[in-house]
Amino acid sequence: MTPYSNKKLVINEDQHQKQLKHKQWQQSQHYKLSISPKTVSHDAVNDSKTWTEALSSNTNEQYQVTKTLILKPKTAKTAPATPVVVIALESTETNATALGKKLSLKDCRFANEDLLKGTFGVDKDSVSPFALSNVQDLSLVHLVVDNAILALDAATLLAFHPSAADKTVFVTVDQLKSYFASINKEFIDVDFKALAAAKPPATDAKKPAKAPKAKKEAAAPSEEANQMGLGCKKEEDFPKWYQQVLTKSEMLEYYDVSGCYILRPLAYNVWKEITNFFDAEITEMGVEDTYFPMFVSNRVLEREKDHIEGFAPEVAWVTKAGNSDLEEPIAIRPTSETVMYPYFSKWIRSHRDLPFRINQWCSVVRWEFKNPQPFLRTREFLWQEGHTAHLTLESADVEVKQILDLYEQVYTDLLALPVVKGVKSEKERFAGGYYTTTVEGFIPTTGRAIQGGTSHCLGQNFSKMFNITVEDPSAPANATEEAKKLHVWQNSWGLSTRTIGVMVMTHGDDKGLVMPPRVALIQTVIVPCGLTVKTTKAESDKIFDACQDVANRLKKAGLKSKADLRENYTPGFKFNHWEIRGVPLRLEVGPKDLEKNQVTAVRRDTGAKFAVSLDNLEAGIKEALDTIQREMYEKAAKKMQESIVRVSKWEDFVPTLNKKKLLLVPWCDRTECEDDIKERSAKVANEGEEEDDRAPSMGAKSLCNPFNQPTEDPIVPGVTKCIACEHDAKHFMLFGRSY
Amino acid sequence: MTPYSNKKLVINEDQHQKQLKHKQWQQSQHYKLSISPKTVSHDAVNDSKTWTEALSSNTNEQYQVTKTLILKPKTAKTAPATPVVVIALESTETNATALGKKLSLKDCRFANEDLLKGTFGVDKDSVSPFALSNVQDLSLVHLVVDNAILALDAATLLAFHPSAADKTVFVTVDQLKSYFASINKEFIDVDFKALAAAKPPATDAKKPAKAPKAKKEAAAPSEEANQMGLGCKKEEDFPKWYQQVLTKSEMLEYYDVSGCYILRPLAYNVWKEITNFFDAEITEMGVEDTYFPMFVSNRVLEREKDHIEGFAPEVAWVTKAGNSDLEEPIAIRPTSETVMYPYFSKWIRSHRDLPFRINQWCSVVRWEFKNPQPFLRTREFLWQEGHTAHLTLESADVEVKQILDLYEQVYTDLLALPVVKGVKSEKERFAGGYYTTTVEGFIPTTGRAIQGGTSHCLGQNFSKMFNITVEDPSAPANATEEAKKLHVWQNSWGLSTRTIGVMVMTHGDDKGLVMPPRVALIQTVIVPCGLTVKTTKAESDKIFDACQDVANRLKKAGLKSKADLRENYTPGFKFNHWEIRGVPLRLEVGPKDLEKNQVTAVRRDTGAKFAVSLDNLEAGIKEALDTIQREMYEKAAKKMQESIVRVSKWEDFVPTLNKKKLLLVPWCDRTECEDDIKERSAKVANEGEEEDDRAPSMGAKSLCNPFNQPTEDPIVPGVTKCIACEHDAKHFMLFGRSY
Repeated sequence: MTPYSNKKLVINEDQHQKQLKHKQWQQSQHYKLSISPKTVSHDAVNDSKTWTEALSSNTNEQYQVTKTLILKPKTAKTAPATPVVVIALESTETNATALGKKLSLKDCRFANEDLLKGTFGVDKDSVSPFALSNVQDLSLVHLVVDNAILALDAATLLAFHPSAADKTVFVTVDQLKSYFASINKEFIDVDFKALAAAKPPATDAKKPAKAPKAKKEAAAPSEEANQMGLGCKKEEDFPKWYQQVLTKSEMLEYYDVSGCYILRPLAYNVWKEITNFFDAEITEMGVEDTYFPMFVSNRVLEREKDHIEGFAPEVAWVTKAGNSDLEEPIAIRPTSETVMYPYFSKWIRSHRDLPFRINQWCSVVRWEFKNPQPFLRTREFLWQEGHTAHLTLESADVEVKQILDLYEQVYTDLLALPVVKGVKSEKERFAGGYYTTTVEGFIPTTGRAIQGGTSHCLGQNFSKMFNITVEDPSAPANATEEAKKLHVWQNSWGLSTRTIGVMVMTHGDDKGLVMPPRVALIQTVIVPCGLTVKTTKAESDKIFDACQDVANRLKKAGLKSKADLRENYTPGFKFNHWEIRGVPLRLEVGPKDLEKNQVTAVRRDTGAKFAVSLDNLEAGIKEALDTIQREMYEKAAKKMQESIVRVSKWEDFVPTLNKKKLLLVPWCDRTECEDDIKERSAKVANEGEEEDDRAPSMGAKSLCNPFNQPTEDPIVPGVTKCIACEHDAKHFMLFGRSY
Repeated sequence: MTPYSNKKLVINEDQHQKQLKHKQWQQSQHYKLSISPKTVSHDAVNDSKTWTEALSSNTNEQYQVTKTLILKPKTAKTAPATPVVVIALESTETNATALGKKLSLKDCRFANEDLLKGTFGVDKDSVSPFALSNVQDLSLVHLVVDNAILALDAATLLAFHPSAADKTVFVTVDQLKSYFASINKEFIDVDFKALAAAKPPATDAKKPAKAPKAKKEAAAPSEEANQMGLGCKKEEDFPKWYQQVLTKSEMLEYYDVSGCYILRPLAYNVWKEITNFFDAEITEMGVEDTYFPMFVSNRVLEREKDHIEGFAPEVAWVTKAGNSDLEEPIAIRPTSETVMYPYFSKWIRSHRDLPFRINQWCSVVRWEFKNPQPFLRTREFLWQEGHTAHLTLESADVEVKQILDLYEQVYTDLLALPVVKGVKSEKERFAGGYYTTTVEGFIPTTGRAIQGGTSHCLGQNFSKMFNITVEDPSAPANATEEAKKLHVWQNSWGLSTRTIGVMVMTHGDDKGLVMPPRVALIQTVIVPCGLTVKTTKAESDKIFDACQDVANRLKKAGLKSKADLRENYTPGFKFNHWEIRGVPLRLEVGPKDLEKNQVTAVRRDTGAKFAVSLDNLEAGIKEALDTIQREMYEKAAKKMQESIVRVSKWEDFVPTLNKKKLLLVPWCDRTECEDDIKERSAKVANEGEEEDDRAPSMGAKSLCNPFNQPTEDPIVPGVTKCIACEHDAKHFMLFGRSY
């Protein structure tokens, strides 16, 4: 069916109003499509035949009529729906069952009105690909495009109902693809003809459900549990794995403002634990918490030029309130140096006020236009920012390192992650600062480093700009006022929710999250097991009571514990439920456990199983959690250690980089050389043979000049050369691909 | 001197560029002046004579030449400068010394370049009234206007240097006054002629400084200490007192974006204590912390019409990022109902997920156009907002009250403040909600009530709008899907940093802040006393060591303590320093105290003095702090109780209101009647004789229907009439003037 008509486009008088309304829709869609789609109105139609007729009398374009189907596979009651959107030529025979088989989805049926309305915001007569714009979490949707459409010429017009049964929009095949790209949604190319031709695979006779034995549950999870699994492997498709592990563990939710994400309790709790630890430590040091407004006037923001150049392209501006335009636009803080320092100059009156140290816990906004990534690159993020002023550089230096040590502790002690401490190169230094120290993390799966937190010495640059001075107590009494004036030495330091992303990426596995015990919202979950059809009510009650009792005892001992006493779920379902959420330790309580006066503990990180006596419950579990915490760190630290490779010849640089390593190299410490290394490592990678998606061609950046320099075979001044140029090496530098 | 010229305005070719630049300044000033001031350029001039000459050749206007002087009175080293800006006719003789005397300021001298630059952003040749726009804290500036200017006709032009010595701007006397109004700065009208004519008062011969005796210090604070005092009394000028107590205690700082304030550590710590208490309580209840983005798309924000109508006029919109216009404006959350509930509909899949309860600690933005007031009405404020969903109204009801009880505890137990709990009238209910409960606070000095925190039951309104449903577990098995569908019952509840304002207003006194011990950043300060010129170094060391020792012991016992061992300040200065900051308990340690093995404790709230044995230090101080906390509450509660008056006749309504009381009255519970009461109480107040600034003419609002209804002489259904109309009274309602 290829309707074709030479008739001119005719619009009824009374359709004019409808068109106006539609124009608004069209405009709202405009930016999404980056095109002006051609739209026509006609009588409302609800089947393809009347539609084709209506169109043929309304337009003179050559086009293909399409259909958009929304199917719903069967999923566990508690799991979200994972609808399948099929976009096909009207003429294509689309077999839902065969499609379901192909996609490994169960019982694909047409979605009901509730799903259409709730998830896609449409009714059955106005389903179109553009309904995808209304979907909150596109990761849950399978998008299937008919191979017969993709085989068409890119300029071929396709007819879709845009938002109502009495409208048709025409877009080309190419524009349709652009639309999918604009909403960041990949599609699955399906050859329905081939599908129809293939012999349907033999369906297994469904066995009646039987209460599974406790021992086999973990190995043979229920079908329901499978549905809530990740559906991809960490090593095979890391970006998809990351997205899936975050959403399916309910740690994070995608949000309808791009680059913003919802931190759900599992994630926010990590931030709370970091806050509690770090805030207590800096309070002890004498730092006081404060809160500055999120808004900055342009005048203040622009005061320090180098600094603002670094941030200006990402600053979000408020220009309206209610219906009124503001007299002048007001920025949302991207960081607070220029927000705070005018007040430092007011508050710091004497050298006796030094060190002056404040910190704030807040969110900042950096409107990045690069691809956002949960935790790692987001437009709003939570952080702490410390800002301090000192009489001397020495005093500032000491604090820079103290804070860096605390950042290291956040990683090692709380998140069970290793970091390398060091100083950033001039190129990577904080805009407007004097020197920047960093804790660098490492994501083994991608072989990329990640800046984990930075502690900057700002020197006197800002204090000169904002006139933050005290009278120098060591100046001679007869010195002039000007000579006595001393500009304070300043530091600023920040740690953000990016920490959480590093934790997930490093510890997570194919089953989901793996939470270090110290930051877990639930540290142990207790699951009643071993109940069969023969179990009496009394026996079952006894098990359930024992589970609750164990949970209560552990809670009392300060361990975050929960008994999962849901009656309508199998143990296997529960195991999966808590595994994907990364609960560090699962305790199984069955009849045999009670007989032996014990619980069976299963570690999330290793899968190791062991008994803990009820007599020794609290101490036993506490010890197990400590062991998990320690061994998770050791495992990650070993991996990082193995991944830092000393290289001294340039020929080895890129090949080693491509093996997902970080490189410790003798370096001349010159920005020109750093630029050169970046360019050369990117180029060679592009030409390399092993190039693929997961070995990115980006050039290597300098990560830091590690405090811990190798002692074996050290730099010999004047002898050891830089790895990349003919200059003398100054020290070892850590290079690598980086987030 | 009244220069007058008929020559036309002539501008040199090379002045054109300067003028262009100046135009930008002029435009930036435009909104502040709400006028287009006429500006001319001329050669740079640095005295009045050359200026007058330059002007006379440049304009044909008739005008008065002025001068703007900036003086700096002597203040304590640690106190901020309090400059005096004098705007006078060039011809007026302005005697700085005489002016200083009149304003009770010490040693008024011309300000140096540093002050001009640092505080006013100008140099000595470009001082003008408009430099006030650059001042961060206008409350510190004394603004004096020559009576000779005020005596001129309102339309008389005045000549000022706007921003440079080669520019002159002309504004009328009226426009000058408007400018002062626009920056919210009152001026002092000074008759310099009268001042010059008055006999200079005899100056006291300055006595040589003597080490004051410890006992007399509190009664006779040093002059320096006087300088940092409030300079006004709570009962005499409450708005000024409030501003002074907040800034001089260093609790809060004014900020250069209107309606935004800096919460300094003293204030932020109160919020931390509230957070710690409340978060622990709701965690115990099963509420989980989360963080939603601060940005909301327009589409989502507008989804609930009643609700958004309440907030729309105050929503701030981000329309730009870097240099790019956003595709569509994005709102900053004013509250998060519409932000969160689309996700509730996704996350809540089954009645087993209920109650579903989350909370977030964040800041929200409400761009109010009314006069801002620190803590009470600010454009950004910190709060917590809880959002929960329940299967039944009963379950929602229970939680609404539980939360309200926690809010009450925040006030009574932490802030030592009484509240009245009750239900808001229909008129005062949360937009889009079902019913609203509140804790109402009371500010005795103004006799006004203040809404202290609200716990709303939202009913099913939002769940219907956002389609948040579960399958009704009690529905018959054979019911249709539609019949089984149950919309959840929702609550939302919030408490903000407004709490801190109520605390300051209630407890503060003429000496400054009075902090309840439980939220004080420093609970006890230890001050070495009784040192005289005869004290030996060894004796003095012993005292200082003893102070530090006391501080250490108290800290170890969990009490927030600090020894003030600054050597260059007198005890009197320190007493004042900590009194203005509201430290609940001061411990004095002198030679006689050590002899008696004791410290002398002085309560901030009552001034009561008593000895505490060093043998019983920790317990004694802890008990004293508990007593202060309890008695501060009791005092405030007694005051509130006395201020709630039962009134049953309308004739008594307004007179009682005017006595700064809240009224408990029999009421019909009708919105029409509430509107009527508001109007009638405002009108009568306007006509009243006792009207003054501190008895505002605003009408009375309903505050709440108190849970605690009077049992004595109760409402008799069908008999007791409403206080304001002929309808039957339904219950007692609390009415009052309100913030």
